[in-house]
Amino acid sequence: MIVVLSGGVGGARFLQGVVQVVPQQQITVISNTGDDREFYGLHVSPDVDIVLYSLAGIVDAANGWGIRDDTYNTMQQLTRYGNEDWFLLGDRDLATHIHRTNLLRQGKTLSEVTDNLRIQLGLDLRVLPMSDQPIATHIQTPAGLLHFEEYLVKHRSADDVQDVVFVGASKAKPAPGVLDAIKQADAILIAPSNPIVSVGTILAVPGIHDALHEASGMVIAISPIVGGAPIKGPADKIMRGLGLEVSAIGVTRCYRDFLDVMIIDEQDAHLTREIEDLGIPVVVTDTIMRDDETKAALARTALQAAGLTI
Amino acid sequence: MIVVLSGGVGGARFLQGVVQVVPQQQITVISNTGDDREFYGLHVSPDVDIVLYSLAGIVDAANGWGIRDDTYNTMQQLTRYGNEDWFLLGDRDLATHIHRTNLLRQGKTLSEVTDNLRIQLGLDLRVLPMSDQPIATHIQTPAGLLHFEEYLVKHRSADDVQDVVFVGASKAKPAPGVLDAIKQADAILIAPSNPIVSVGTILAVPGIHDALHEASGMVIAISPIVGGAPIKGPADKIMRGLGLEVSAIGVTRCYRDFLDVMIIDEQDAHLTREIEDLGIPVVVTDTIMRDDETKAALARTALQAAGLTI
Repeated sequence: MIVVLSGGVGGARFLQGVVQVVPQQQITVISNTGDDREFYGLHVSPDVDIVLYSLAGIVDAANGWGIRDDTYNTMQQLTRYGNEDWFLLGDRDLATHIHRTNLLRQGKTLSEVTDNLRIQLGLDLRVLPMSDQPIATHIQTPAGLLHFEEYLVKHRSADDVQDVVFVGASKAKPAPGVLDAIKQADAILIAPSNPIVSVGTILAVPGIHDALHEASGMVIAISPIVGGAPIKGPADKIMRGLGLEVSAIGVTRCYRDFLDVMIIDEQDAHLTREIEDLGIPVVVTDTIMRDDETKAALARTALQAAGLTI
Repeated sequence: MIVVLSGGVGGARFLQGVVQVVPQQQITVISNTGDDREFYGLHVSPDVDIVLYSLAGIVDAANGWGIRDDTYNTMQQLTRYGNEDWFLLGDRDLATHIHRTNLLRQGKTLSEVTDNLRIQLGLDLRVLPMSDQPIATHIQTPAGLLHFEEYLVKHRSADDVQDVVFVGASKAKPAPGVLDAIKQADAILIAPSNPIVSVGTILAVPGIHDALHEASGMVIAISPIVGGAPIKGPADKIMRGLGLEVSAIGVTRCYRDFLDVMIIDEQDAHLTREIEDLGIPVVVTDTIMRDDETKAALARTALQAAGLTI
């Protein structure tokens, strides 16, 4: 059994590699839900949906999120009714949020709803939200506390980051199956996702950090920072705001309590010694996921680093 | 002030005439909400929306409901998630239901939500739901009790009608403003809507029947049955099921407690005497609403029958 801790676009692309080299029945994804937010009263789970859409082959590959060839007629009409329009939700994408909200209102948990969507989309792997309780990542900025999606999308990550707060995390519990999956995993892969607002959110759920520390399977992380910058997203601004070095070294520091191997890009090979000085062995490889082949190769490297023969 | 009691398509077309001859500020519509139903957890008010869309000039005129040139991508995806698909909701139309549901969940009443939509759509008349409490019209058939939309749309009105039940009506109250509008109206027009499941539902809200009986303004009805058949919808099957004659006479019997004048079509001129024998004066005119001109002419005839000079 393989566990993958995943955020949105980077995690989903990595998972597109993992499913090429491991049968889906052997994969459990633990997904960040700190970005979840209601729009128009509908529960949107951006990272869960990016993972589901990407693995179901319906993702808008150019954006990395949303459904391919979607239209925006519902939002256009919602805007006519005076609603905000800064978070783009396509018509097909909205079906996911309507369906999810409907099942949640009927009393189903976020785990159950996620599993329902996963089945309807024809996927055989397990996708677990990190928690069934609401956790809302907020960014402290000079302009005030912003919900992560407000910071990322509405403000286009323009504000200085002073702190990151996981509202609700201290009272949340890991979703059913999360701790067991980590405990029983032969390997735990931390996708090349934002170490603070994607993976860090998962680690903020009480019990998950300790479970990783005590896991018998090896914990392997892939750095999302390559050549001093993130492949996508505002990880650099957020890491810098928290006083972390924007590099594979900074990422390693986030995970060093429980990390067994750090995978870094060839461009960062010169950082190997410094990471190893933190007590973490390093694997250097091509981490840029350009196509199906490079995605599969990265997944294979991660699994081999965990000591698995595939 | 003019009050119009309205169902869906027939009522909306009549209102398109009324707004040509009376300033919108002087019109209050009391709309049937017995067809309201949740689809996918979203509150749909079919008759209210038909009226709003028709008067805002965005209705799909061929169907009589929905928004012109709408797409169906959200529903297609919802169907992929295992949801039922017998009630067509376009992408733009869904924005109305999402917006309404969101405001209702925030604690607004159906009246307040309807007024919000009315304003957003740029209309100056008042549109009042008959009640803020849920009332659900059901049709008793040999196959069991069916929600009206199930009977009408899913079953295509194929079942025999044994009875009509307004679930919730006895405990409902007229929405704020409904009784006052009737009391203060110079004329109350009953649109050519289904006398049982559109207007009858409005009359089933405690207090409305009595208010019409006591109204100082004249009450004028237009028969939706012409030449022994309804212009649209299953009024014939429903009237027959309840033992009513499917004719302008049967319609008159539904309203005779409070009706001042009955307007019937030229095709039904031979029924004049029999209706007058019920104690109700008759106006014979062309009631077929083919275009803007015939709609305006019918509205003008109704207002003149009420003794108003326009």
